[in-house]
Parts: sequence; structure tokens; C-alpha cells
Amino acid sequence: MTRSTLNILKIGGKVVESDQLLDQVLNEFVQLEGHKILVHGGGKRATDLGNSLGIPAQMIEGRRVTDANTLDIVTMVYAGLYNKKVVAQIQAKNYNALGLSGADANLIIAHKREGWKHDYGFAGDIDQVNAQSIHQFLKAGFVPVLCAITHNKKGQLLNTNADTIAAEVAKAMVPFYPVHLHLCLDLPGVLRHPKDASTLIPVITGQEYADYKKQGIISGGMIPKLDNAFAALAKGVNQVRICGPETINQGGTLLK
Amino acid sequence: MTRSTLNILKIGGKVVESDQLLDQVLNEFVQLEGHKILVHGGGKRATDLGNSLGIPAQMIEGRRVTDANTLDIVTMVYAGLYNKKVVAQIQAKNYNALGLSGADANLIIAHKREGWKHDYGFAGDIDQVNAQSIHQFLKAGFVPVLCAITHNKKGQLLNTNADTIAAEVAKAMVPFYPVHLHLCLDLPGVLRHPKDASTLIPVITGQEYADYKKQGIISGGMIPKLDNAFAALAKGVNQVRICGPETINQGGTLLK
Repeated sequence: MTRSTLNILKIGGKVVESDQLLDQVLNEFVQLEGHKILVHGGGKRATDLGNSLGIPAQMIEGRRVTDANTLDIVTMVYAGLYNKKVVAQIQAKNYNALGLSGADANLIIAHKREGWKHDYGFAGDIDQVNAQSIHQFLKAGFVPVLCAITHNKKGQLLNTNADTIAAEVAKAMVPFYPVHLHLCLDLPGVLRHPKDASTLIPVITGQEYADYKKQGIISGGMIPKLDNAFAALAKGVNQVRICGPETINQGGTLLK
Repeated sequence: MTRSTLNILKIGGKVVESDQLLDQVLNEFVQLEGHKILVHGGGKRATDLGNSLGIPAQMIEGRRVTDANTLDIVTMVYAGLYNKKVVAQIQAKNYNALGLSGADANLIIAHKREGWKHDYGFAGDIDQVNAQSIHQFLKAGFVPVLCAITHNKKGQLLNTNADTIAAEVAKAMVPFYPVHLHLCLDLPGVLRHPKDASTLIPVITGQEYADYKKQGIISGGMIPKLDNAFAALAKGVNQVRICGPETINQGGTLLK
């Protein structure tokens, strides 16, 4: 018996912030063949809400510092506003979306980041993904919609990067399904020249990735994303694609 | 075979707002025998957040008017902040909490309130509770934690009263379980004199309720709560108790 593929799509803050873009991406998402999980970030709205409340975002080396007030804000925006908005819109397309944080059903246990040079507050690094429960939800016909909030199983919520959640869930589901991970960026895929969509690189092997980094063709914020993606492939994820809102179902950059 | 009782506990904003009171109530809640569902409101924090953002609560005849901004606020506070806080704390007590809005798993379908004298905006009146899915979650060992957000199955979230959600879910679950509904107020139960806990009325029958209303012993905001509660009894809910944070497991006022 051929096992049904599990598609995991990660979308960023820019998609969830735009009603039109979100609708377009969700239309593509529900057409992916097989089981489906959506993982979403939340980005800018959390920063805006913090600013309105006099709690400006503090960043250290590109990472958000999550103090207690900021944790409340990201929990409100990610687990509340965006998670339920996405769930309601997928439900309207007649797919049985189920919105989840890592605390729900004890899906993702993390610990407060420690031993780093800086204190990132309630930032959570993942210890364990409860793959069996995710499998049960998928078998029951649900489309899990995961936000970037986890917990430590001791009552503390934690803020965890959405790319990391997507990659960790993909790796954890390998024993149950052939897993395809789709990472949706603002760009249509990996580009040789970031401002020119015609320079899309359709396929990148691990060796080519090393070369592109050496040559400076791939740099900056793309590196942690692709490091994560290649690590997922190494752990048995069958396919990783970097795509854009227009290339959820085909196109983009395939990593091999 | 004796079927296991389903206990549905509704808690209000004052309980979820206090870490200490919430912990105390959840300790009592997890000890209730049989299956369990928690329904929570959110109250004051949503009002405070709205005030901070320059979106003051508008009330008409004691009901919140839910314009688009207010809907975002209650979705953030109820479905995000409080729902995930409660879930994480129940998880810490080793019960498998699963936080849900009415949009998740299509659990509660509502419609935008219409035909009333005033426009309440995105206030939702319940059409249907998906009892079969709630039953499946209970059978799988989950403790559903329901917030007071529903949807119309067409992509629109709606704000629905938490007392109403508790009563409608209780009625919908009657075919599956003996259902006990516990409505937790700030008071220890129904009191003859609201400021004197020693005047607790331990049992109220439907006939006595009618008499108490006539005599003015029960009045004001208690009336819609008890109307809801007696309507649930009439629809086959086996037991309804009005309790306080100190009387979750015993005491309070039993309705018959």
C-alpha cells in the first residue's frame, strides 16, 4: 500500500497579514495531494501591537527577545488572532482545520533557551514533537494549523521560531508518512539575484548549496532557512521546496 | 455498562485573570470524576486591551458590541492569551488539555446576530454544536478547553457568550453522556442576600425559581444565567450546579 504523502506548508507573517494573499495561498494549500499541516508565523502584527502598547520589540542579532509582556503579545497574535483566522478560512473551504499551539495535546515540548550569550527571555528551543498525536489528528481527517507557540509541560508557554517548528514537525513525522516540506517565502524560491525572479534556481543539491554559500550567491537570512531545510532532508524528509505565495503547488526551488 | 459522566465547568473572566485563583480552580476541575470540558470567558482583559488601543468597549443593555476591531481583540485575548494559558496549566497537571474555538474542528457554528433592535456587530448566536467531534476528542482522552469564539463556516469568526456556549455544549452532549454542568460564579452559589455567603440556597427547583423571581430574591444578571441553566435541565442535562471558585467539587446551589 502506498502511504499518503504528508505536506507541511510553512507561511510567514506577510501572508497571514494580507487577506487576499492568505486566501490565494490557502486555495493552493488545500489542493496539495495527501495529508496537510499548515505552520504559520506572525511577525509584524505582534510588533505593531507591542508598539501600540508601549512594549517595543527588542531584537538581539535578529532574534526577538521575549519578555513576559512580549510573550502575552505573541500568544495573542499567533495563537489567537492569526491561528483562528486561518482556521476559519480553511473551514470555509470545507477542510477540517484544527488550530493548535504546542501546548494543545502536548504537541511540542520546549525549554527556555539557556546558556546563550544573551537572555532571550521566554524563547523556547524544541525538545520533543508528539508525532503520535499529530498522526492521530491526521488519521481523523483534520488539517492541523500550528502556530509558533510551544510549552515546557510545566505551565510555561514559550515563543518558538515557525521555521524551526515546521522542520522539527517534518522530521518527527518521517516514521508515519513520506513528508514534503514547503517553505513559503516572499520570493518565488531561491534566486541568484534577490531582485530578479528570472534568476530562480530550480534545484539545489547539498554540494551546490555549499558552493553557492562560498560564492556568496546564497547569504544572509537565507542561510539558517536552508541549513534547517537540508538538516530535515538528512533526517529522512523526502522533499523540501522553497516556494513563494505564487508557487505553493509547483515551481520554486527543490532541495536535494 | 454505566457511562462515564461528562462534567462541563464554565469559569468567568475573574478566575482566568488571577493566576492563583485559576490554579486553585483547575486543581478542583481535574479532580471532577469522568470526562471533563472547560469553558472560559475572558472579560476584563479584553476591555483593558481595547482601552489601551483606543478601542473602548461599547455596551448596549449589558452586551458587548463587537465591531471588527473588538472582534480582533476578543479573539486575541480569549482564543490566544487565556485559552493557551489555561491549556498549558492543565497540561502541567498531567491532563491532556486541547484548546479549541468553535472554528476548530468546526465545533460550533453560529450566525451573526440579526433582527435585534440594536446592531451587535460580530456577535454570534449558535446554530449547531458538533457533538460527534467533541465526543471523539473525549474518547481519545482529551480535556477540551473551549473559548467563547465561534464561526459561521464561511470564514467569519464571531463572539459568543461563554455561558451560552457551556449550556449549548451541555445540551448537545446529552445523547453521549450523563452531563453535569457546573457554572462557576464569583459567589459560592445562589444567595438570598448577595453579600452574605451564609444565605446560600443549596437546592432550587423550577417552581422555587419562579417563586424566587416573583419575590425579587433572584434578580438582575442571575436571571439569564438561571434561565439558561433550567433550559439545559429541560433538554436532558442531568445536573446543573451554580458554584464558586471554592465550591467546584461540592457545595454551591443545585438546580433541579
